[in-house]
Amino acid sequence: MGLFSSPIKNLNDLFEHQLQDIYYAEQQIVKNLPTMVEKASSADLKSAFQHHLGETKNQVKRLEQIFEKQGKAARGVTCPAIDGILAEAKEIISDSNDASVRDAAMLAAAQAVEHYEIARYGTLIAWANQLGRSDCAKLLEATLTEEKAADQKLTTIASTSINRKAA
Amino acid sequence: MGLFSSPIKNLNDLFEHQLQDIYYAEQQIVKNLPTMVEKASSADLKSAFQHHLGETKNQVKRLEQIFEKQGKAARGVTCPAIDGILAEAKEIISDSNDASVRDAAMLAAAQAVEHYEIARYGTLIAWANQLGRSDCAKLLEATLTEEKAADQKLTTIASTSINRKAA
Repeated sequence: MGLFSSPIKNLNDLFEHQLQDIYYAEQQIVKNLPTMVEKASSADLKSAFQHHLGETKNQVKRLEQIFEKQGKAARGVTCPAIDGILAEAKEIISDSNDASVRDAAMLAAAQAVEHYEIARYGTLIAWANQLGRSDCAKLLEATLTEEKAADQKLTTIASTSINRKAA
Repeated sequence: MGLFSSPIKNLNDLFEHQLQDIYYAEQQIVKNLPTMVEKASSADLKSAFQHHLGETKNQVKRLEQIFEKQGKAARGVTCPAIDGILAEAKEIISDSNDASVRDAAMLAAAQAVEHYEIARYGTLIAWANQLGRSDCAKLLEATLTEEKAADQKLTTIASTSINRKAA
């Protein structure tokens, strides 16, 4: 068993563990996005990161509403997945010494983050529905819609400008 | 700059770095899937993991073909993202002491892996096309199609049996 972790006996325990995982992940994203806003050279990319920072802060609040509905204090558990994705992002950004190439690397890193969240929110919605918690599912769906839209917007920015400039 | 890493000066360097990252990731997945096959209690889930193990071995070979086309020796670079995703999977699997709940946790972990790959292959295809390497893009697209199908299959297994049994 993980250090300080509780045994997971049923789907509700698993749901709550996953909530804690994504709560930690969203908080790490809130911490890291300002650096990406600052380092982005493309105005489109900078604006997309800035917009998503606002969305992410709101997503943290939605998770807090779900913890409240579950009768649990909102708390995160270290999520090695998001830590790994963000560590990799930092490394590749610092290794890229051309502004356009760094933009392409940052955009790719942001899409890896989005897809991690898309996977996790998809799972959480399925579990919430299975547990008869359509109220929680609805909040999670609002976030999933935003994550998918953010990913799509990044794909558009990549194909219309960033990748061409980096080539 | 990352230890032992080379500076990334252009999009081709970034493409090759990302190839090394996903090459390492696929190899870690090949190492970890047999344990998931063994631990899965649902016959459907066991069979999906077994099938994907075969696909993943073939995806490693496709990456080796791309390295060859690039005139580079196939080698991986440590990918903290996949290491984090797999570490998290191992922890939650060992914390789940009910077979059906463990199946739900493993299925969710596998979908996080699939989404990491979907993000990375999507980026690699865009970069390959930008670099005029439609031959590489074609090989990467074959893998992306498999990853998306694997994710979809897991969603179906989750909704038709795993999550209900775990609840």
